[in-house]
Amino acid sequence: MEFSLGQIASILGGAVEGDPNLKVNRLDKIQEGKPGGISFLSNEKYEPYLYNTDATAVIVSEELKLGKAIKTNLIRVKDPYSGFTTLLEAYAQLHKTALTGVEEPSYLGAGSTMGTNGYRAAFSYIGKNCQIGDGVKIHGHAYVGDRVKIGDGTIIHPGAKICADTIIGKNCEIHPGAVIGSDGFGFAPQADGTYKTIPQIGNVILEDQVSIGANSTIDCATMGSTIIRKGAKIDNQVQIAHNVVIGENTVIAAQTGISGSTEIGKNCVIAGKAGIVGHIKIADHTTIGANTGISKTIKTPGQTLFGYMSMDVKDFLKSYTIFKNLDQLQRRVQELEKKG
Amino acid sequence: MEFSLGQIASILGGAVEGDPNLKVNRLDKIQEGKPGGISFLSNEKYEPYLYNTDATAVIVSEELKLGKAIKTNLIRVKDPYSGFTTLLEAYAQLHKTALTGVEEPSYLGAGSTMGTNGYRAAFSYIGKNCQIGDGVKIHGHAYVGDRVKIGDGTIIHPGAKICADTIIGKNCEIHPGAVIGSDGFGFAPQADGTYKTIPQIGNVILEDQVSIGANSTIDCATMGSTIIRKGAKIDNQVQIAHNVVIGENTVIAAQTGISGSTEIGKNCVIAGKAGIVGHIKIADHTTIGANTGISKTIKTPGQTLFGYMSMDVKDFLKSYTIFKNLDQLQRRVQELEKKG
Amino acid sequence: MEFSLGQIASILGGAVEGDPNLKVNRLDKIQEGKPGGISFLSNEKYEPYLYNTDATAVIVSEELKLGKAIKTNLIRVKDPYSGFTTLLEAYAQLHKTALTGVEEPSYLGAGSTMGTNGYRAAFSYIGKNCQIGDGVKIHGHAYVGDRVKIGDGTIIHPGAKICADTIIGKNCEIHPGAVIGSDGFGFAPQADGTYKTIPQIGNVILEDQVSIGANSTIDCATMGSTIIRKGAKIDNQVQIAHNVVIGENTVIAAQTGISGSTEIGKNCVIAGKAGIVGHIKIADHTTIGANTGISKTIKTPGQTLFGYMSMDVKDFLKSYTIFKNLDQLQRRVQELEKKG
Repeated sequence: MEFSLGQIASILGGAVEGDPNLKVNRLDKIQEGKPGGISFLSNEKYEPYLYNTDATAVIVSEELKLGKAIKTNLIRVKDPYSGFTTLLEAYAQLHKTALTGVEEPSYLGAGSTMGTNGYRAAFSYIGKNCQIGDGVKIHGHAYVGDRVKIGDGTIIHPGAKICADTIIGKNCEIHPGAVIGSDGFGFAPQADGTYKTIPQIGNVILEDQVSIGANSTIDCATMGSTIIRKGAKIDNQVQIAHNVVIGENTVIAAQTGISGSTEIGKNCVIAGKAGIVGHIKIADHTTIGANTGISKTIKTPGQTLFGYMSMDVKDFLKSYTIFKNLDQLQRRVQELEKKG
Repeated sequence: MEFSLGQIASILGGAVEGDPNLKVNRLDKIQEGKPGGISFLSNEKYEPYLYNTDATAVIVSEELKLGKAIKTNLIRVKDPYSGFTTLLEAYAQLHKTALTGVEEPSYLGAGSTMGTNGYRAAFSYIGKNCQIGDGVKIHGHAYVGDRVKIGDGTIIHPGAKICADTIIGKNCEIHPGAVIGSDGFGFAPQADGTYKTIPQIGNVILEDQVSIGANSTIDCATMGSTIIRKGAKIDNQVQIAHNVVIGENTVIAAQTGISGSTEIGKNCVIAGKAGIVGHIKIADHTTIGANTGISKTIKTPGQTLFGYMSMDVKDFLKSYTIFKNLDQLQRRVQELEKKG
Repeated sequence: MEFSLGQIASILGGAVEGDPNLKVNRLDKIQEGKPGGISFLSNEKYEPYLYNTDATAVIVSEELKLGKAIKTNLIRVKDPYSGFTTLLEAYAQLHKTALTGVEEPSYLGAGSTMGTNGYRAAFSYIGKNCQIGDGVKIHGHAYVGDRVKIGDGTIIHPGAKICADTIIGKNCEIHPGAVIGSDGFGFAPQADGTYKTIPQIGNVILEDQVSIGANSTIDCATMGSTIIRKGAKIDNQVQIAHNVVIGENTVIAAQTGISGSTEIGKNCVIAGKAGIVGHIKIADHTTIGANTGISKTIKTPGQTLFGYMSMDVKDFLKSYTIFKNLDQLQRRVQELEKKG
């Protein structure tokens, strides 16, 4: 996707100072500007870069007075930062929707249908009786099992695996290598010490605007559904076990794990590497720190929790400060004992 | 797979009350029953759902007396719970074995053979000189490297990667995205600060009835074999390093990591996110809590361990309770010092 | 790849004692020697195995005097250990470079070029306008997005996903299932509690001799580049967020996570399951223990850090030893209080 400086100025309601026919196809930081790219200057701290940048063009304020000669071209707008953001979003949007059509060989099972403006890459696999909405992009090596439903505008990135019977809403993104709907970890211990597999016949439901990170895994329910509610954002390498429910707009950072049947409220923020046991509930608006272990239901909304076995974050830090010098405390007790 | 109520009643040795020709293709919880599904009623607490359920049929006790009118159909059996479990297992079994034949394009390398009743999905890859048993199911985007052996009845789920020379037993399941036999992490430090790759030429052996979770990784041995013994069950996103041995019937929950050359005994239970250092041994029947770090050999079988640096679980909880109020202990010492 | 004992003796500058026409195709430990394999005897502790081994041949010292009759054949060299290492490296090297040509079906997008002696497996996907160097091996189900550059001698293992615009140096290895260049986790909170996706338009740069482990994930930069410098070695299931920089020759063990915009120095050693927060710097030659949490910039090079919230490793162990018996310390305070 290439645009001329003239086209960009017209999108942003600005004016070109230089050659409006020059073309750019990339957005760069001003300190890393290279030919073919466009940057922006908003913070005056970065102004020195303007006079040396190799960027083809820089978006600057209408009011900027040049202190030196420039090699680059300018697009002058009212607010360079918001202008650049507009461009960034347009670029990302175009990038995501540009792909259409079918590359071969690809596989579409009997009874499966795709909407308009979709994309199926070479080596994408769609099983039987799937319903795929409009504008859905299925990238290379993406796997979609039988009877899966995918809403309009959703992107299944390369090598993501959507297992049978999963239901995915609109405008979701499933990042590369994520696994949605794998069997839950259910085994019944037998008298002889062996384990018998408990069939996992439920599914996974992702509501609209859900994002699942690269190589994350979300198990199907034993029966019923594992549910990720509208607008929840899940980072890379997160593990979500069978029958878990994640509330609306909850954000979960990388490498966190949530055990079976736990329900997380809405608008929670869970930092990286947290671990949450099974069969508990976490209240809405809970903040959970990095690496925190949660072993009990959290009833009061809005708390911030932290620690190996979670506590209020301030209490934990107070205790940990003493822990760091625990030998001093021990020595003080020894002194007292000597005196006594 | 659809069955009529008459067929199901005959499998369960029960009687239909309603239309025996109606068909179902799904098992649901009674509180989530929908047309086309069959549920069960075992616990009387759930009886109210019976009178409103949209399920096509419900398995109930021979002795149940209806308190109200019903919209659904009944299959009356002696023990509804065990009847449903029978159905569940039959359903899961059918589901797993139903797929047979070859979808194209698929790739089968020179010298490789497959047994009877197998399945090779479109875009499945099998390298050279592999020996694949009877009833083996190789799903879409599954990768099987050269000289791999796979026993009867094993399922390789979508996108699982089985590297060259791996040996897999009978009735194993390798879940989506799991990697079996990747190179171990071995690098020899050089005088100039760089690292030289130590060739990893061993393999992985999975014995019979082993289950490996989605996106788990099991490295091949430097030389010899990394071994997962009969009946061991490994959850999602578990990392098992080169030359590790996991004992029979040991269960390992998600996101646990086991470093190189460690040997885990049989019938151990390891909870999620545990970390076990390399070159140690863990005795049989050891229980390791979530998030626990193990840094030393565990010789005595049957212990339960927990904590950042593992201890007996009771001792850890005792210490952690005091840790939570460590400022109180410090204040008490201050008080004593003032008095002294 | 099969070699006769005569060929091997000639490579190692040694002499065959036995049949020089026998062939071997595998390297084994002497205690696990099997027909068709070659082992070595360096440590005299293992000499008893020499007299029973089923290995086709064993590399031994020129000076070894046999204590008993042997069934195997010998290759006598000056230094058996270094002879075996030579063989091991030659074997691994051959193994990696042996594959050439194109298996079909494979996909090569418009404008993409590959150098000489390369390999593209069946079901490998290469997007548009990629530049792939000489001797690059792209294995089954490997995905290479648009405009990716890959240097000479690099191996992309099965099912690895290299997203658009990634730049990979020479002689790198990307192990199975790794994801390079997935979108960074960036979402801007909105007034109504929802999140808006922040476009991630940067890329990932891997310099020469970088190794990325199985199922690891490295996110692209929001703008600019996430960078892994020359010779860095990353283990399995490691998560590296957007705009992180990893220094030369730094080694990171499995399941570690590094948050956005953090810069790790060169020649650091980071053990498994460590967690490092975003927007900090770690000095060169820092050693970070397993499971350690790092929340602040480390300025002094050469430190060894450990603990839930990292400290100097000796201080942590001192405190943890007291923590383990914290109830004793509490009891001593009680005793003092009673006396007072």
